[in-house]
Amino acid sequence: VKKSIAVIGGGSWGTALVKVLHENLPEVFWYMRNPEQADIIRNTGRNPRYLSFVEIDPSGVRISTDMAETVRHTDMILLAIPSAFIAGAMGKARPDFTGKILLSAVKGLVPGHNLIMADFLQRQYRVPSEDIIIITGPSHSEEVGMERLTYLTFAGKDQSKTSEISSLFKRHYLKPVVSDDIYGTEYAAVLKNIFAIAAGIAHGLGYGDNFLAVLIANAAQEMKAFIDTVHPIDRDIKSSAYLGDLLVTAYSQFSRNRTLGTMIGKGYRVQSALLELNQVAEGYYASEGIHNILHSVPLSLPIVESVYRILYEGISPVIEFKLLSEHLK
Amino acid sequence: VKKSIAVIGGGSWGTALVKVLHENLPEVFWYMRNPEQADIIRNTGRNPRYLSFVEIDPSGVRISTDMAETVRHTDMILLAIPSAFIAGAMGKARPDFTGKILLSAVKGLVPGHNLIMADFLQRQYRVPSEDIIIITGPSHSEEVGMERLTYLTFAGKDQSKTSEISSLFKRHYLKPVVSDDIYGTEYAAVLKNIFAIAAGIAHGLGYGDNFLAVLIANAAQEMKAFIDTVHPIDRDIKSSAYLGDLLVTAYSQFSRNRTLGTMIGKGYRVQSALLELNQVAEGYYASEGIHNILHSVPLSLPIVESVYRILYEGISPVIEFKLLSEHLK
Repeated sequence: VKKSIAVIGGGSWGTALVKVLHENLPEVFWYMRNPEQADIIRNTGRNPRYLSFVEIDPSGVRISTDMAETVRHTDMILLAIPSAFIAGAMGKARPDFTGKILLSAVKGLVPGHNLIMADFLQRQYRVPSEDIIIITGPSHSEEVGMERLTYLTFAGKDQSKTSEISSLFKRHYLKPVVSDDIYGTEYAAVLKNIFAIAAGIAHGLGYGDNFLAVLIANAAQEMKAFIDTVHPIDRDIKSSAYLGDLLVTAYSQFSRNRTLGTMIGKGYRVQSALLELNQVAEGYYASEGIHNILHSVPLSLPIVESVYRILYEGISPVIEFKLLSEHLK
Repeated sequence: VKKSIAVIGGGSWGTALVKVLHENLPEVFWYMRNPEQADIIRNTGRNPRYLSFVEIDPSGVRISTDMAETVRHTDMILLAIPSAFIAGAMGKARPDFTGKILLSAVKGLVPGHNLIMADFLQRQYRVPSEDIIIITGPSHSEEVGMERLTYLTFAGKDQSKTSEISSLFKRHYLKPVVSDDIYGTEYAAVLKNIFAIAAGIAHGLGYGDNFLAVLIANAAQEMKAFIDTVHPIDRDIKSSAYLGDLLVTAYSQFSRNRTLGTMIGKGYRVQSALLELNQVAEGYYASEGIHNILHSVPLSLPIVESVYRILYEGISPVIEFKLLSEHLK
């Protein structure tokens, strides 16, 4: 039987993934919430708000604003919604995931639940763990849209199934990498957004490249400490899915999380920066989620904790980073 | 007895280190080759060609163009000359290092000898290994000159001696970190320049941030593989002296090595790029040196080998990076 796939989410990552899939498949289903946006894409072949330079051939892309229907028509569901909206969107649509394969390109903890997507899908939607695949790795959607070479990691329990599904994404500019570390890759994707905020704060405060390098090296150490504690398996944290993802987010101009941090470092109040940004910065929610998880994990993560205090406890970034700099090495 | 220190080298790193030391000590000796440059600094308090924004108080800095004499007057000799010029400069001056402590801020292999400085000083100048301290870590001299927070690693055999000497460099903007890994930190400093050339080539060829993150993550893995093989001790390659140094060089606008790579990626012939750069790019020599060492080390380092083939065998960067991208993950 031929497998069909749906992308859930009309943002930039969803748009980039629809582009990739549609180049390999005759038909791709695409759910988005906004009917006007759906109409514009159907009529113009362009997503007006996200990656509008990407051409979408409307004849092969079945756009719908009914999530439950989209899910019903397809075998594989690729979630590409910000984690902050996942629970709301899915709670309303009540999609039936029975027998479906769930791919998650969501990079964050589900707020309120404090769960990574793999756990959320298992607990809330009874998706068996072998039917869950996590998509991660250094991948600004803008660059995927521009066809610049990108390595995407596909993490799943069943390696041959994961490998087979990952090949649907293979393009001359997109190389799938297969991994069995669902938990590690997801937590890395969550943590890196917190570290990107830290990098932005440092930049905004006027710290230079010398300090940033120390900060990111220490962030890689905190990432390893956390992931190895919550899910102790043998992994090389220097792989693309972990260190690579951290680097692309912390060093790139495209990162919303880094931009949020830069604004806060320059003196914006946190709420003003969030408003001004006008886009979801996953690291903001991740910071609170990881902070809560750390209540039950015996670890000290100085950078993660500093970012939390700045974002949620109103501590001045100037003072917090002066203290933090004493803990780095 | 009061210890006296001399900085050998009138370039930007030498200038930054003289600034730091002179803020902590009443008197610093400073050797440079060029008599005109020495006169200008004596008269104006500024190094005309390097970090000219840094003020040097000529009353406390004893500038000399006689290396042997400078060495004779001091107990500690801090070498800050490009590795390409070390053998020549010291061969001519024939300094007597007997009883002296040698600090090396040289970041490269000594060409012709293919030795890191710690080995070169021991073999060519009979300096006992416990009298050698390696200074490394993420440290663009420009930012040290601008007093932006920088962590410098001091690696030496005797930890208490190393710690004591490192405290001469402690400033509100400069934090010394003490290490016992002389070989590892030096080799990391050598390798990172090769990886910075690779990062520049990728950038020049039009690869984006997604690929760069994968390249640097793989570079960190190659760094660990090489260093753990040539000097197997327990170390965390994610520390500032290793990963931090790699990041600052590969991601920074100040990096000469990255600039060299960018020019080559954009289509300059290697010799033209070297001429145009008009400054020493340590990675050019490091590439040949490590290539030679790899003859006797059973390791495959795809990035290091690709850079060598582009720099020394005239292979097109377009083709070489297409092949390289198949080896990354």
